[in-house]
Amino acid sequence: MADTETLTGPAPTAAPDFAGYSCPLPLRDHPRVVMGHGGGGALSAELVAHLFAPAFGNPLLNSLADSTVVELGGARLAFSTDSYVVRPLFFPGGSIGDLAVNGTVNDLAMSGARPAYLSCGFILEEGVETAVVARVADAIGAAARTAGVQIATGDTKVVEAGHGDGIYLNTAGIGLVPAGVDIRPQRAAPGDVVIVSGEIGLHGVAIMSVREGLEFGVEIESDCAALGGLVDTMLAVTPDLHVLRDPTRGGLGAALNEIASAAGVGVEIRERAVPVPAAVANACAVLGLDPMYVANEGKLVAFVPREHADAVLTAMRSHPLGARAAVIGECVPDHPGMVVARTALGGTRVVDLPMGEQLPRIC
Amino acid sequence: MADTETLTGPAPTAAPDFAGYSCPLPLRDHPRVVMGHGGGGALSAELVAHLFAPAFGNPLLNSLADSTVVELGGARLAFSTDSYVVRPLFFPGGSIGDLAVNGTVNDLAMSGARPAYLSCGFILEEGVETAVVARVADAIGAAARTAGVQIATGDTKVVEAGHGDGIYLNTAGIGLVPAGVDIRPQRAAPGDVVIVSGEIGLHGVAIMSVREGLEFGVEIESDCAALGGLVDTMLAVTPDLHVLRDPTRGGLGAALNEIASAAGVGVEIRERAVPVPAAVANACAVLGLDPMYVANEGKLVAFVPREHADAVLTAMRSHPLGARAAVIGECVPDHPGMVVARTALGGTRVVDLPMGEQLPRIC
Repeated sequence: MADTETLTGPAPTAAPDFAGYSCPLPLRDHPRVVMGHGGGGALSAELVAHLFAPAFGNPLLNSLADSTVVELGGARLAFSTDSYVVRPLFFPGGSIGDLAVNGTVNDLAMSGARPAYLSCGFILEEGVETAVVARVADAIGAAARTAGVQIATGDTKVVEAGHGDGIYLNTAGIGLVPAGVDIRPQRAAPGDVVIVSGEIGLHGVAIMSVREGLEFGVEIESDCAALGGLVDTMLAVTPDLHVLRDPTRGGLGAALNEIASAAGVGVEIRERAVPVPAAVANACAVLGLDPMYVANEGKLVAFVPREHADAVLTAMRSHPLGARAAVIGECVPDHPGMVVARTALGGTRVVDLPMGEQLPRIC
Repeated sequence: MADTETLTGPAPTAAPDFAGYSCPLPLRDHPRVVMGHGGGGALSAELVAHLFAPAFGNPLLNSLADSTVVELGGARLAFSTDSYVVRPLFFPGGSIGDLAVNGTVNDLAMSGARPAYLSCGFILEEGVETAVVARVADAIGAAARTAGVQIATGDTKVVEAGHGDGIYLNTAGIGLVPAGVDIRPQRAAPGDVVIVSGEIGLHGVAIMSVREGLEFGVEIESDCAALGGLVDTMLAVTPDLHVLRDPTRGGLGAALNEIASAAGVGVEIRERAVPVPAAVANACAVLGLDPMYVANEGKLVAFVPREHADAVLTAMRSHPLGARAAVIGECVPDHPGMVVARTALGGTRVVDLPMGEQLPRIC
């Protein structure tokens, strides 16, 4: 535990020395961290699989779920954390404060848990206006009240100007998993119907439009929202949902790949069935992006046993956050670990796991 | 919740506009965040009392404890979070990884909880060496195994070079509070004996010595350690401990002030009884610091009912992390909210709550 060597700054080495660390290939190919390591795609997965999981020596981390279910005092709890470094701090449809609450609430809900308590850690950059901190804090408070959770504990650190970017946030959350609920990526099974809760791509395009000063004719707002209520509605139909996931960084494409890989199943989607708003499609066409990989902050994708799919879809559509829910495909025994899209023209294409995020610091 | 205004960078305003935000005086005196807001002293307390607590609208945050005790699924859980921005990342006696595990484990233990699960969020600066991340991850894994906790969930974000400082960490933790245990600052009562678990000031002086390149003759190592086992030993004597606190940022002086203020009691300490290692005393004399305000990362201060004090002290001394435990004073009905030290010369002095940390980014 004690490490008496000191390291006061980046001391470049020709060949990074991994001797003694639990870090096998292929991370050697990346002697330094690149933006893509935070993008929620293949580079992020590599960091977890080859560096964090071996170092922490912990099978819990390998679950690859949005939140981890643990048992404590006889209760089954979902536990999750995310840091938020979105730029800019305020954007159409929300702010870093809304993201920090809804992102962690949604990660808990993706295990079927009822989100209950959040922690909140601020890393403030010296010189940021107190009024900006107050606006973010008020957004956190309002989002927590809307989501029905309490901010139970917090922390504030300040770093010197030039070592942050106004405000970074971290939230962690805990929630109670109801009896009989077992929702995780590994449970995806051939025959499952794949349902998305609404239109994709809004959050990423909203961030990009304000960051790059782009105009797409209509203002596109982030879909940032808390999904606990929608999940409750779905669980009221059946506790036997197999997988839930909110397709944030890396978008729907990354989420489907992670599920296919975790469960060792194939996923087949019909490209035309995926609801993409015209404004998002237009923006993506201009920018050369694929909506399948653009981040969402108020959507979920569900793998539902076929016998419950119609009833679950109907229930979702009765909820404001699921009004545009749609069946987009199914889980298949073929091509395990791979996601395939049937295109509008009748062909097929592989939907790969992206390397990193198309757009850094989206959340 | 939706906030459609955009803010792409720091746009200085002559008079910060708090209209509509739950932020009363005296924060108006600080239009911008200063380093001291992260120092764990009066400025930090002001930020919580006047900005975060009203915004979050939550009585839980007012408990002022190191961790908050909540009930979930019939279990009483302690829940806590801290972000870590220490500079440098590696120092004599530990690293940011050790701090991130032990700091949060200790916050849980200060509610009498058995620490069980931690989350871990990395904010990496683009360009940091992967080998450095691996060293920190290995330190986290080792510290977690020593403390008997599991890293259950994690997250990684990357920010551009020049918007971070290598690695920032956040951990949150949950632990189970045994039946019959109710440890919080408000329970300090006149007659309580004040015990500190060992020598103070080591962490802060260790950080300063490497950061500023100072030599004090002997190398001073951080006391960074997990205190869960020591607390177990104390609870085995009696579940009726009144207050436990780990005096980190702001040191013993800030911790005693927070307890006095939360419980509305006075605290009287005998300056000569406070164990200060000669090396720390010498370093503080050179640097013009008061050891009472220097951070510790492996010490606790306990308020124990008089009838249990001897047995608790004996038990503490039987544990490696409490071998140098000492009675330093008592809780009194006089001067509520105030900490008074009897000096070696027989006089008295007020031990104030510091404004900020004497040394920024200590943890």
